[in-house]
Amino acid sequence: MTTQTFFPVAQNHHKAFGPISVPKRLLLGPGPSNAHPDVLNALALPPIGHLDPFYVDLMSEVQELLRYAWQTDNRLTLPMSGTGSAAMEATLANSVEPGDRVLVAIKGYFGNRLADMADRYKADVKTIEKPWGEAFSIEEIESALDQYRPSILAMVHAETSTGVCQPMEGIGDLCKKYDCLLLLDTVTSLGGVPLFLDQWGVDLAYSCSQKGLSCPPGLGPFTISPRAEEKLNSRSEKVPNWYLDVSLLNKYWGSDRVYHHTAPVNMNFGIREALRLLSEEGLENAWNRHMDNAQRLWQGLETIGLDLHVDKDLRLPTLTTVRIPDGVDGKAFTIHLLKNHGIEIGGGLGSLAGKVWRIGLMGYNSTPENVDTILNLFETELPRFKN
Amino acid sequence: MTTQTFFPVAQNHHKAFGPISVPKRLLLGPGPSNAHPDVLNALALPPIGHLDPFYVDLMSEVQELLRYAWQTDNRLTLPMSGTGSAAMEATLANSVEPGDRVLVAIKGYFGNRLADMADRYKADVKTIEKPWGEAFSIEEIESALDQYRPSILAMVHAETSTGVCQPMEGIGDLCKKYDCLLLLDTVTSLGGVPLFLDQWGVDLAYSCSQKGLSCPPGLGPFTISPRAEEKLNSRSEKVPNWYLDVSLLNKYWGSDRVYHHTAPVNMNFGIREALRLLSEEGLENAWNRHMDNAQRLWQGLETIGLDLHVDKDLRLPTLTTVRIPDGVDGKAFTIHLLKNHGIEIGGGLGSLAGKVWRIGLMGYNSTPENVDTILNLFETELPRFKN
Repeated sequence: MTTQTFFPVAQNHHKAFGPISVPKRLLLGPGPSNAHPDVLNALALPPIGHLDPFYVDLMSEVQELLRYAWQTDNRLTLPMSGTGSAAMEATLANSVEPGDRVLVAIKGYFGNRLADMADRYKADVKTIEKPWGEAFSIEEIESALDQYRPSILAMVHAETSTGVCQPMEGIGDLCKKYDCLLLLDTVTSLGGVPLFLDQWGVDLAYSCSQKGLSCPPGLGPFTISPRAEEKLNSRSEKVPNWYLDVSLLNKYWGSDRVYHHTAPVNMNFGIREALRLLSEEGLENAWNRHMDNAQRLWQGLETIGLDLHVDKDLRLPTLTTVRIPDGVDGKAFTIHLLKNHGIEIGGGLGSLAGKVWRIGLMGYNSTPENVDTILNLFETELPRFKN
Repeated sequence: MTTQTFFPVAQNHHKAFGPISVPKRLLLGPGPSNAHPDVLNALALPPIGHLDPFYVDLMSEVQELLRYAWQTDNRLTLPMSGTGSAAMEATLANSVEPGDRVLVAIKGYFGNRLADMADRYKADVKTIEKPWGEAFSIEEIESALDQYRPSILAMVHAETSTGVCQPMEGIGDLCKKYDCLLLLDTVTSLGGVPLFLDQWGVDLAYSCSQKGLSCPPGLGPFTISPRAEEKLNSRSEKVPNWYLDVSLLNKYWGSDRVYHHTAPVNMNFGIREALRLLSEEGLENAWNRHMDNAQRLWQGLETIGLDLHVDKDLRLPTLTTVRIPDGVDGKAFTIHLLKNHGIEIGGGLGSLAGKVWRIGLMGYNSTPENVDTILNLFETELPRFKN
């Protein structure tokens, strides 16, 4: 027997690491949230082949469960084999051709990301902006559509950076009137906040696995309407991103099940279980649970004298931004919560850095017990962090 | 309390699915392979935040373990948050600028994929080809480099579609001589076949999690040499793929740990454990084990009168292509193995469709017991599939 060792094996990176032991964490930040134990059990099932008849059936189940969660009939509804950001990029990569005008309505960090991505796909990017913590009015949207006449309006339903829920009534009708596609970020709303993609006239949407669905991060739900599929089918050139090319993925996730890439089989076991649990609870129940627990949190925070950053009627039930009081070292408090209590909450991003905390109550984590735990810590321990 | 339900929830996609029950499978195809039980346990650990100090330490461990497995000192060595195909695309997306000449040495299905991807990044793609089942000689490589003078030579070390292992001696030196970067697919070699990226002068490489590493699919190991980093840093425009942009990922995986996207935390738990097990076994031992079991398989198949598609000195120990004998319904036999024995083997792709079976012995699955199991089935049950 010949070994194929041509060189001595270098040992400079050969370190002896022990098995992983993960600290116990309650994840009450902007995501990931804790995963449901049944989802973790599903993740740990032995993998099977990505063309196995059993797996092919499971793919159809995941698609159907996603259609329910998003309230859409879209044929091409599937989890992209990457995180929410990959699914975000998929919406643009497939719909934008060079020179297409894309209007991005920016009211936080993730609106800026949409603009950056659209630019990389050679869109003619136009933006409108609102201060971080506000939403767009229907009049502002119409005025911008009228002025810019875009092919695509891209916006964020649930801004994870600000805690704002964008009211969607009437926007889809405007997009039809101005003959543009509506692209919507639902990363922090899927599973936790009412979503009616078809009723709202949404053409492209994406989300993630690790927030309202309580599955670990790693998959990016994606959906495309027949109207947006038409634009995809009439492209003059290939989609400039092979991995996220829906015209190729269609052959695997559509009827033919032709190999495209080796699917992340276990992550799909996980999201299938997460979506099943959501379906078992029922959307209305899940949405109401999130709202009830959010209101419990809001009331409690205000009772102990903290200000919430977003007006009540625009607040996301899944993510709350709390203003850091003057004289408080916000960062030190988050580090204290993590180190001494095993609880993660988030800090601010972008223009809200240093100004807010972000508290997430998503999916499995949206419980009265978790609300009371975090309220109790704010009440009893925050005073020690005032200068 | 107001609920935010604006429309009645449509129930047409509200199906009652039970929990997942996965059939028992022995995965002896081209991948995924079965995952090590310790890896599955790691996958099912409760997720923690992607900026948690514990997770940040784990990232460094994964990077160091990958450097050992690949035998490279490259600073930017990390798992892309997608499957091997995403990592494949990352090598091209980051290194190709429009008009760059990319020479792809094609000797199977995945060489064609490299050419397709390079084309999407507006490369001036040139190709050289060998029949599926052969490798390139050093003279053929030099002749093509001399003729085409590319910026990048892209090739596949271990062709999953043919079972050929490309000899690498001298190719890196030629790439330096002709001033081009060497991009190498190691999807079916990492962990199972000797790899010496730095000694071979490889500038960009990618792999997957689900073959030699015995982790489920979902991560794509990626590495870039200082020489290729220079080319990345001197780009005149942004990388046209946001998700895979290494100049952004560098801020998260490099020293700063700045948020880019929410990492697939649990998949990284899994690959960390898979790489730790490889490190514990030691590369030389893992490589020798793969070769010993492959030789046991080859000998057994030849003893029962089957022909192997690849010359012995070019055969991959991880993946063996077996010619389907005349008069045998190859597809019916693979379906029989899956349905009645729970064993997956692969069929041929592209020009080998219908002509070969593909038998994988990768990572955790490379054992004498598995070899004997599959040999026994070929010996006793294949005769029933002859016309």
